[in-house]
Amino acid sequence: MSETPLDLTRDAAHVTAQLVDFRSESGTEKPLADAIEQTLRAYPHLTVDRHGNNVVARTNLGRAERVVLAGHIDTVPIADNVPSRLDEDGVLWGCGTSDMKAGVALQLRIAATVPEPNRDLTFVFYDNEEVAAHLNGLGHVAAAHPDWLTADFAVLLEPSYGEVEGGCQGTLRVVLHTAGERAHSARSWMGSNAIHKIAPILAKLDAYEPRRPVIDGLEYHEGLNAVRVEGGVANNVIPDACSVTVNYRYAPDLSPDEALAHVREVFADCDIAEFVVDDHSPAALPGLSHPAAQAFMAAVGGRANPKFGWTDVARFSALGVPAVNYGPGDPLLAHKRDERVEVARIRQGEERLHAWLTA
Amino acid sequence: MSETPLDLTRDAAHVTAQLVDFRSESGTEKPLADAIEQTLRAYPHLTVDRHGNNVVARTNLGRAERVVLAGHIDTVPIADNVPSRLDEDGVLWGCGTSDMKAGVALQLRIAATVPEPNRDLTFVFYDNEEVAAHLNGLGHVAAAHPDWLTADFAVLLEPSYGEVEGGCQGTLRVVLHTAGERAHSARSWMGSNAIHKIAPILAKLDAYEPRRPVIDGLEYHEGLNAVRVEGGVANNVIPDACSVTVNYRYAPDLSPDEALAHVREVFADCDIAEFVVDDHSPAALPGLSHPAAQAFMAAVGGRANPKFGWTDVARFSALGVPAVNYGPGDPLLAHKRDERVEVARIRQGEERLHAWLTA
Repeated sequence: MSETPLDLTRDAAHVTAQLVDFRSESGTEKPLADAIEQTLRAYPHLTVDRHGNNVVARTNLGRAERVVLAGHIDTVPIADNVPSRLDEDGVLWGCGTSDMKAGVALQLRIAATVPEPNRDLTFVFYDNEEVAAHLNGLGHVAAAHPDWLTADFAVLLEPSYGEVEGGCQGTLRVVLHTAGERAHSARSWMGSNAIHKIAPILAKLDAYEPRRPVIDGLEYHEGLNAVRVEGGVANNVIPDACSVTVNYRYAPDLSPDEALAHVREVFADCDIAEFVVDDHSPAALPGLSHPAAQAFMAAVGGRANPKFGWTDVARFSALGVPAVNYGPGDPLLAHKRDERVEVARIRQGEERLHAWLTA
Repeated sequence: MSETPLDLTRDAAHVTAQLVDFRSESGTEKPLADAIEQTLRAYPHLTVDRHGNNVVARTNLGRAERVVLAGHIDTVPIADNVPSRLDEDGVLWGCGTSDMKAGVALQLRIAATVPEPNRDLTFVFYDNEEVAAHLNGLGHVAAAHPDWLTADFAVLLEPSYGEVEGGCQGTLRVVLHTAGERAHSARSWMGSNAIHKIAPILAKLDAYEPRRPVIDGLEYHEGLNAVRVEGGVANNVIPDACSVTVNYRYAPDLSPDEALAHVREVFADCDIAEFVVDDHSPAALPGLSHPAAQAFMAAVGGRANPKFGWTDVARFSALGVPAVNYGPGDPLLAHKRDERVEVARIRQGEERLHAWLTA
């Protein structure tokens, strides 16, 4: 195997270091995608496909179940933290160690070392996860080749500190615009103040009691929040326009339409001139009742936690594939200059995935 | 008089045109101040003083009363509307016609043509009215030579379309800051939303009933308004800071301290992290009960109106000199490209001031 661009004969911690040293900030993933493709093509038990800088490798053993192991190969911009550095405490430092080259290393090691898994495997390596949603490689593959992603269950190896995070909450962003009429502030009664008109909107938000529904045994926690407010023309002018940007994070028992209807209802009696849907990403059900998920939970141990933030598991969910996050990185260290990962946790992840897929 | 820079032998409409053609955008008033000084020094009944580009001319007849006629000599930036143009309908067009070279023309004509007024006269020509308050020439004269402004009554010849506007409302601007704690909007309960905390502030503003007190027979009209609102970090972050800029326009029966105390009281039970006084200009009483003002009102006719916006009359009020606005220009045309003034109204103003000061 020494002739392949990546050496997958070393354990996952070594592979993580190789990947970190192989710079791949969003938009510059091609060399790493090439390396992954070329390396995996050397393994005869894998079929390898490519779409843009996204690589999909599959076993084709005719197993009763198929599971996906997926990860993005891009990182946020490097901040003087490449190449990687292994310290004496067994911690590997560097850009992407946690988010999520340690997870990609697990994918590559399973691909290389488990030629006859008990379930057929699909490995997805994709680009542009750290940037705008429309660039996301997993989204491009799902649109162009949904058949490549057909499976019973998916594990996204995003950092979750070795715990399973199920499903994800949806996120809807709307901009509520109020309208008034300009006037000099010395003669304010000649106008109508658009900032004052957001008072009932903020009162609703301030009084809002978010739901905490339990789904598949996981307690989700919603939120309805103003994330931005803007209004004002000049210090002596009654403003004719104001806007409040509201973010609704909703549990996966609501469809996108239901979530939008709920937000419209909350603000129904506010004097809103324009209601703009700015962004909407649906929630994903945890799917933990599926047999493949149950076996996965049994193999990796511990209990699942709900995922509050939106993640790419929702892209699998939209294709009808239940998905969880499970990776060795620490989500709190993602995107930080002092990003790092514990080698012991990478090795533990490799052992547990290996056990699940070879039992 | 033909050897002076300005020809004051022609009527006030002609003098207005001369002044408009003598460009004097704020900051460039020196040539016009020089011309006014040199012209007035040619009149032996006047004492002329100068401070910077401000010129003060006085009669010294030992009359029982002294009144001020004041006007600023600067204009807003010229917008292809100089030189002036007199049309066939008797309308003079050009930058500063209304605001306020027609008023300055009245000052100059009275100075030149009323050598023995029934009241001693003080003519104040000042610079930098159209720009930042700290540059205002009347303020500089008031600070450096308050004795030059000593009087029983003052008329500021700002555009008021030939009507008397008494006193002015004060203006107080405060910035109310709320504070929270940042969190990812997917886990909003980990933070505290500073935008939601402005809800009670806006509710107070929305419900506020402004006073309309009658003072010296003039009905003022207060206002308490948000003129700006700002908050937000990013679309997925619970914001830790928000601010509302509030403008209180208050009637001249309140002192600056009383006005500030009132605003503090309105928002006393709101959760405000910081209360910043951003700007404060006191109100001015109309002073219409003063005998000099009564005589003025009788001479110019009509009834006085309250002045809602803040004007330089407050600078006289602060010196203990009651003051009104009375000028031939139209305030609605000030600062416009199509600024203009009716010649008939300039002549009417000249006649009425002449009548008042020679009766």
